[in-house]
Amino acid sequence: MKTIEKIAYIGVDLGGTNLRTALVNHAGKILESRAAQTRVDQGAESVSKTLLALCRALVRSAAKLGLKVAAIGLGAAGKIDRSTGSVVFSPNLPVLDGYPLGRELGQNLEIPVCMENDANVFGLGEGWAGTARGVRNWVGIVLGTGVGGCLFLNGKLWEGDGLGFSAEIGHMIVEPGGPVCPCGSKGCLEAFASARALVSGAKKALCGQSVKEGPLHALDRVGKLSAHTIYACAKRGDPAALALFDKMGWALGICLANIFSVLGIRLAVIGGGVSSAWDLFISPLEKTLAQNSSMLDPGAAVILRSRLGNDAALIGAARLSRKRTQVSR
Amino acid sequence: MKTIEKIAYIGVDLGGTNLRTALVNHAGKILESRAAQTRVDQGAESVSKTLLALCRALVRSAAKLGLKVAAIGLGAAGKIDRSTGSVVFSPNLPVLDGYPLGRELGQNLEIPVCMENDANVFGLGEGWAGTARGVRNWVGIVLGTGVGGCLFLNGKLWEGDGLGFSAEIGHMIVEPGGPVCPCGSKGCLEAFASARALVSGAKKALCGQSVKEGPLHALDRVGKLSAHTIYACAKRGDPAALALFDKMGWALGICLANIFSVLGIRLAVIGGGVSSAWDLFISPLEKTLAQNSSMLDPGAAVILRSRLGNDAALIGAARLSRKRTQVSR
Repeated sequence: MKTIEKIAYIGVDLGGTNLRTALVNHAGKILESRAAQTRVDQGAESVSKTLLALCRALVRSAAKLGLKVAAIGLGAAGKIDRSTGSVVFSPNLPVLDGYPLGRELGQNLEIPVCMENDANVFGLGEGWAGTARGVRNWVGIVLGTGVGGCLFLNGKLWEGDGLGFSAEIGHMIVEPGGPVCPCGSKGCLEAFASARALVSGAKKALCGQSVKEGPLHALDRVGKLSAHTIYACAKRGDPAALALFDKMGWALGICLANIFSVLGIRLAVIGGGVSSAWDLFISPLEKTLAQNSSMLDPGAAVILRSRLGNDAALIGAARLSRKRTQVSR
Repeated sequence: MKTIEKIAYIGVDLGGTNLRTALVNHAGKILESRAAQTRVDQGAESVSKTLLALCRALVRSAAKLGLKVAAIGLGAAGKIDRSTGSVVFSPNLPVLDGYPLGRELGQNLEIPVCMENDANVFGLGEGWAGTARGVRNWVGIVLGTGVGGCLFLNGKLWEGDGLGFSAEIGHMIVEPGGPVCPCGSKGCLEAFASARALVSGAKKALCGQSVKEGPLHALDRVGKLSAHTIYACAKRGDPAALALFDKMGWALGICLANIFSVLGIRLAVIGGGVSSAWDLFISPLEKTLAQNSSMLDPGAAVILRSRLGNDAALIGAARLSRKRTQVSR
């Protein structure tokens, strides 16, 4: 066994609901995973303790396998301060704003810890061991509560000009003056292609409809409108629900056409929970993309679905720790 | 005098109307320039002969100054084949399609020649000796008959994923389903922000107007509608002409908001003939940009006008030759 094979990494996916961790080997394979509820209601210190317990258990598991955990990578939604290992601002984890979660974990376990935005971590996972393995130039889109993005140029994660953001694909404008996005702008991709947009789109359609009955109405009355239930309605043929996924595909198509035109690239990988609705949005996406990207040769664009699913963030966080700490290559 | 100071470069700006050449020193300063009409009507060989005569004269001028021309850079509109030194496809110079202009010039003068797309050459000039000097991450926009673009990332010209294009900013969609662009798509930036778009926008406004008189009508009747004359009308307060520049600024604002969001950058340099209308489009541009780029801190975006004007292409072509031939740093 070579030295590199005796080293492992821990990847952490810190979400608003779940706190997931995994022990990942040198080749990007998950050896063991452990999860808990994030329980943001109990405060930042409680989250930090839960995280420490999960990671400590994985360090022990690693030891039993003859492996040493060389580094921990932590992916979280929001703006991350890489130097202090803390979340600067996160709409889903407000209790953690400014809390030095990464530093605390690192000091307790005496293992280097690094943090990154969750969409970038998704991309690092897909690029290491998933759909984009070996691809130098591509864009990643994460369809969740909101819409995240990541960009890989010349084989490297593109981090922008030091402004604290990059690949904010969810906030590219696809319909100027369109529906208001939580960011304050109008007509962002996120206002069409996120779980939140599906629910608000459904509510809007119900208000405007002359027909006052149908499956979406029934769901709304019992407070059960969600991306998941709207998808189920669409699969049963409800026109109002189908229209929402059509519009989602259209918005993704406009956005990708613009990204491909400006960067001269042609590959996108789409993941995140809402990408489960792939069968409903991929056709309008591809049609819109073809109509709006005159520079690409016909058929040159490649739109692929994430292969790692939920594991992309865990594997990507491990990859991040491997890169940042430069333990090995 | 150091060796580097004994070397000079020739930059060529090959346009549909004019063929401009310049002798450029090691610091990006034009020492002498010479121009002629392109005369595409007389065929590719005639253009090639004119180009050779201009360059030969500059080589002689260099010798008189004690300088040796180390390389020639050639910028032209359209798709360029860098390996063969020929124009693959150019709407403004169709007679040159496939003609090995660069190779012929190089063989005759026994000087290395390289070619590049005109918008990229503009960017190389502004980055070397103009507005973007010393800036690592920025986007360039050239407002001319059409709209060209260039992208500099980590201090280097971004060339895309080998698809034969990149930074096709003119063909990013700003109004889905909007006016038809010569590229075939609808609502591209070029359909709002080019000289061609100003003229077709004016004609469209005249068709739709209930008022059948006014300065644009008068110009149209005598066949004198152009970007220049429409600008003059707007400066005299004609509302229809002013509306066209408002829309141009709006389209540039949407486009730049999207570029800044996806790349996490904040600087644009705008040049080309139509950028002379700066005073009419910069306000709507900045207003639209601020409204549609939620990720940028207020006031962080910087939109600058080209400092080199027409010389950007000449200086950039010289820069290109210096880089590609690696004669010196």
